Amino acid sequence: MIVVMKPGATDEQVQHVIDLVRDYGLKDHPIYGSDRTVVACIGDKRAVDKGAIETAPGVERIVPILAPYKMASTEVKRERSQIAIGPAGFPIGGRKVGIIAGPCAVESREQLLRAADAVKAAGAVGLRGGAYKPRTSPYSFQGLGVEGLQLLAEARERTGLTVVTEVIGLEQIDAVAEYADVLQIGARNMQHYPLLEAVGETGKPVLLKRGMSATLEEFLLAAEYIINAGNKQVILCERGIRTFETHVRNTLPLASIPELNDKTHLPVVIDPSHGTGHAYMVPAMCKAAIAAGADGLLVECHPDPEHALSDGAQSLTPAALRDLTGVLRHIADAVGREL
Amino acid sequence: MIVVMKPGATDEQVQHVIDLVRDYGLKDHPIYGSDRTVVACIGDKRAVDKGAIETAPGVERIVPILAPYKMASTEVKRERSQIAIGPAGFPIGGRKVGIIAGPCAVESREQLLRAADAVKAAGAVGLRGGAYKPRTSPYSFQGLGVEGLQLLAEARERTGLTVVTEVIGLEQIDAVAEYADVLQIGARNMQHYPLLEAVGETGKPVLLKRGMSATLEEFLLAAEYIINAGNKQVILCERGIRTFETHVRNTLPLASIPELNDKTHLPVVIDPSHGTGHAYMVPAMCKAAIAAGADGLLVECHPDPEHALSDGAQSLTPAALRDLTGVLRHIADAVGREL
Amino acid sequence: MIVVMKPGATDEQVQHVIDLVRDYGLKDHPIYGSDRTVVACIGDKRAVDKGAIETAPGVERIVPILAPYKMASTEVKRERSQIAIGPAGFPIGGRKVGIIAGPCAVESREQLLRAADAVKAAGAVGLRGGAYKPRTSPYSFQGLGVEGLQLLAEARERTGLTVVTEVIGLEQIDAVAEYADVLQIGARNMQHYPLLEAVGETGKPVLLKRGMSATLEEFLLAAEYIINAGNKQVILCERGIRTFETHVRNTLPLASIPELNDKTHLPVVIDPSHGTGHAYMVPAMCKAAIAAGADGLLVECHPDPEHALSDGAQSLTPAALRDLTGVLRHIADAVGREL
Amino acid sequence: MIVVMKPGATDEQVQHVIDLVRDYGLKDHPIYGSDRTVVACIGDKRAVDKGAIETAPGVERIVPILAPYKMASTEVKRERSQIAIGPAGFPIGGRKVGIIAGPCAVESREQLLRAADAVKAAGAVGLRGGAYKPRTSPYSFQGLGVEGLQLLAEARERTGLTVVTEVIGLEQIDAVAEYADVLQIGARNMQHYPLLEAVGETGKPVLLKRGMSATLEEFLLAAEYIINAGNKQVILCERGIRTFETHVRNTLPLASIPELNDKTHLPVVIDPSHGTGHAYMVPAMCKAAIAAGADGLLVECHPDPEHALSDGAQSLTPAALRDLTGVLRHIADAVGREL
Repeated sequence: MIVVMKPGATDEQVQHVIDLVRDYGLKDHPIYGSDRTVVACIGDKRAVDKGAIETAPGVERIVPILAPYKMASTEVKRERSQIAIGPAGFPIGGRKVGIIAGPCAVESREQLLRAADAVKAAGAVGLRGGAYKPRTSPYSFQGLGVEGLQLLAEARERTGLTVVTEVIGLEQIDAVAEYADVLQIGARNMQHYPLLEAVGETGKPVLLKRGMSATLEEFLLAAEYIINAGNKQVILCERGIRTFETHVRNTLPLASIPELNDKTHLPVVIDPSHGTGHAYMVPAMCKAAIAAGADGLLVECHPDPEHALSDGAQSLTPAALRDLTGVLRHIADAVGREL
Repeated sequence: MIVVMKPGATDEQVQHVIDLVRDYGLKDHPIYGSDRTVVACIGDKRAVDKGAIETAPGVERIVPILAPYKMASTEVKRERSQIAIGPAGFPIGGRKVGIIAGPCAVESREQLLRAADAVKAAGAVGLRGGAYKPRTSPYSFQGLGVEGLQLLAEARERTGLTVVTEVIGLEQIDAVAEYADVLQIGARNMQHYPLLEAVGETGKPVLLKRGMSATLEEFLLAAEYIINAGNKQVILCERGIRTFETHVRNTLPLASIPELNDKTHLPVVIDPSHGTGHAYMVPAMCKAAIAAGADGLLVECHPDPEHALSDGAQSLTPAALRDLTGVLRHIADAVGREL
Repeated sequence: MIVVMKPGATDEQVQHVIDLVRDYGLKDHPIYGSDRTVVACIGDKRAVDKGAIETAPGVERIVPILAPYKMASTEVKRERSQIAIGPAGFPIGGRKVGIIAGPCAVESREQLLRAADAVKAAGAVGLRGGAYKPRTSPYSFQGLGVEGLQLLAEARERTGLTVVTEVIGLEQIDAVAEYADVLQIGARNMQHYPLLEAVGETGKPVLLKRGMSATLEEFLLAAEYIINAGNKQVILCERGIRTFETHVRNTLPLASIPELNDKTHLPVVIDPSHGTGHAYMVPAMCKAAIAAGADGLLVECHPDPEHALSDGAQSLTPAALRDLTGVLRHIADAVGREL
Repeated sequence: MIVVMKPGATDEQVQHVIDLVRDYGLKDHPIYGSDRTVVACIGDKRAVDKGAIETAPGVERIVPILAPYKMASTEVKRERSQIAIGPAGFPIGGRKVGIIAGPCAVESREQLLRAADAVKAAGAVGLRGGAYKPRTSPYSFQGLGVEGLQLLAEARERTGLTVVTEVIGLEQIDAVAEYADVLQIGARNMQHYPLLEAVGETGKPVLLKRGMSATLEEFLLAAEYIINAGNKQVILCERGIRTFETHVRNTLPLASIPELNDKTHLPVVIDPSHGTGHAYMVPAMCKAAIAAGADGLLVECHPDPEHALSDGAQSLTPAALRDLTGVLRHIADAVGREL
């Protein structure tokens, strides 16, 4: 941490900061420049709220140096994590790229099984589908609940696909963990810390979505909550951020892939469906994601998008998904991966 | 809702959209312009996921017309809501402007009582302070829990101030509701729907903070969840949004005040502490908020900001708060309100 | 400047950075922490592109310490600048708050004179109005050009108001400088450096608008270009930034006022018309701006907004402006200023 | 255009809007829904500032239906444009993907020729390099001017590469057009309309960069200015947008590629150097861009990034560029293109 003093800060003010720094258990290291004095602080105190020093007289700002996450970082673990998911133990984070596809919500037995068959036929390894849906409006379809979970389990039985489904509150964790292979934490819950701790205690792989306005540092701190609760099986999912752009539902920043690969050992999958919001953009962004080094994709696919109860506008048809995976295979090959 | 067809959409495509619109229980009203055909859809179906129609061939986009919230809107209730809070039943949303101040977190009995006395002396009506703290890092101070709630109750006993404190999960609702006068939903939980429904069932006034990347429509839909669960006592709190600006913790958009006053009957309070992140900006933004028509303020005040366990950088000292309220009184008067 | 090394950076890498730092004419000051090494660099080399050091092996990032602007900063000049504008030499940046109002564009003699009379009657000191309009679409009204400038001069003659009008390119500077009292640089031109230098050479006061995605640092660097070209008479104008919000044309961040007052001696005026885009929000934001400490306002006012050739949606009527200034006078008084 | 009336708008208010719509030369088409009245307006009046109608009593908002650009749109021209650039007439927008690489700024003869040789050896078709540099700070290196242009011409002579260089003001257009093959308009000048019109009159191909907070609609309107001035040879360049993300210089939204391909016939190239700001992210984003369907890349490459006078942090070394193009060739092949 570096404390930057204001121009013209007095000796008393600098000394007061030095005293505060020592109070906080850090070692001070003042540097007197031509225009400014800065006080470098040495010591690994991630728990200290360093911001408080900013209010001391003569302080201009505080510059943190250490990333506040630890177990998620490449500082602590350099080899990349591989996380085995589903009945076949598919390793997310290895050479193979895993595709997880399916409808936004489980709507009915017929819809889900048709989707699952299409997803399987397209060469995917996982089936996504929400049984509990966090909906922006209280008047929207909220999911089938346990019945949806049972249908997902039936689809797994039938196809061998890994089941990935969202848990939206503490009270559903047991049910979801009973039926699902991977517990998904949605973007809106990325900073719901009690939920992060609870899924951290289940021992099931967790697919953690980036909050729509979370920095990557906050994203990794959310992963840190899960790891800190005892669960190292965290898969990060970039699903787009909120920006001023209006032609997309979210802006999908694929530079998250090289950046996360630099900062963390956890695998990274991309969700181009939420990341764009429009089916006609999804194939291009799936291709781009794999070219950029994604470890997997999360894609919405619905047997009848025009009648989907949610997210129809961003769902691929089964035929579109099948055509797409053919191209993705070649791209994976071009970047030394395998689909 | 308006369905905008692409240029060159065929008659069959337009007819297919008309059929879909009728399937959805809406009345179609096609308009054939010089360059485009649009299909206006009549009917109040807030539950329908209209987005799905976007995937029909020849459709360019969907333009919603009705706001998706209802009970929170001025369409349904035109007179402004007043919400009585605390032991004295102070009416938030009336002529009087209410100031709620206090530390970010309850840290100790001494800290809280000193803060409460200062807040009272400055003329505030409410005491804020977190007993449960949602912290970005798992290594940060997480609050005193029930002990913190008991200290807040003691401070209320001593000062008569209304206690406003955050509930971060379903499992603490009973405890918080037992001690607090107003339940606060933090920005990170604005879209945690199970929590919204649960506070909606308590019957206690709720202070709902805007999520840091929520649109005002999403904000009002979150309020709608609470009202829909049976609780009309919702106070909206603008606390700043995430933008590209780096000299502030959040960008505080005070135009939310006139906009919310136009769209909803619910009262609006402003949090300039989170809305800026730096104590030296807080007084200017408190003044601006009241001038713009805020019904109240939520301000962080700590007896010793330099040693605060959280949010020290944005906390006013007791002296600064007292000086500020003097000026605020004159501004309230200038805009026909009273402090 | 601080160079932060990656965890595990080797001694050779640190030494290479030290060598680079010395190459750049800076003094190195390495600090060896428990987890990281950082190299503090002492010396005032604002011209050096410090970013290049980031590519050296083992470097994680560069943290600048000094603000890159100088003459605009309070480091160099502590007393606030007052800039005398117009026939009466009204001092922007002093105790008095100056209101500059008028139509977006000069459309006709009748429209402008009606507007000027209304603006004068409302107690404003300046008349705004574009003779050259930078329009997003090539098909929109582009302004009356020199004829517009002559009408502005006629309005000044008639009312005594200061004329503020935009210059959009080098080729109009002479004409605009001949007729106008204050040269406005629009948001889209904030980083058009040849234009900044050219207005810097005119010796006329300049009203510089913040670019819609400019940081305050970039804003002050744009001011620095003008000052560096020999013209200290720069008035900063916050007109809102582009964010994800859609209910406003721009998000108006009033915390710019205390922040700019802390970092620069230049006066700050606020444009709530562009800062919101909707006339019904403008009065609230005018009040807020003055309460927050603005030195002036730039407000659009049109005698017939429904038929305005540009920006009608955000223009006040003459009656609305007159009502507003009455309240503004009281708010200015409450914060120790005068209208 | 659709005018949405407020709930409870009176018949007089609706009639007044209808009158206004007719004043504006449009045909009205009112629709009376259960909750709202909307007035659809038929007619192609791109020049009308429709916003003014918003201020009429009882109006809630205006929804435009037609895109405001025309000649740039696929409505008017469906087949994709190919733009021949440089001595060899390389067709940007065809099956072949064109790579344009080189230093941010021309710094010296030796630097430029080394860069040009490396760029040529890596298989690129164009050489980029600024002779006039728009720099955020007045104290930064501003380019070599005409001498830089002459060095670029020498490098073209030597390598056969197409020269792409920026024009930052009207006064340099003649000089730049004399030496360069493609005139670049930088992001900061995307809305400098006099400059757009001037390059529109040169007849040289123009590479137009997206402004860092421009919507795609504004981007296409900027292209429309150039086309409207008589020059159809516009190459669009996505270079990233400003968002809340801080680990990148800009957020690079690759979904611009499928979106622009849907809305315009103009070719699209991607600049991953400015689009990320850090050399270690550039290769991943180059791969992603080609996989997503980009027609070309604009990449910074410097023989000695550690000593670059500008943008060193985001410049590839010659070796890194050569390795990258090998992979890009395979990806282009996977998506049916050719490098």
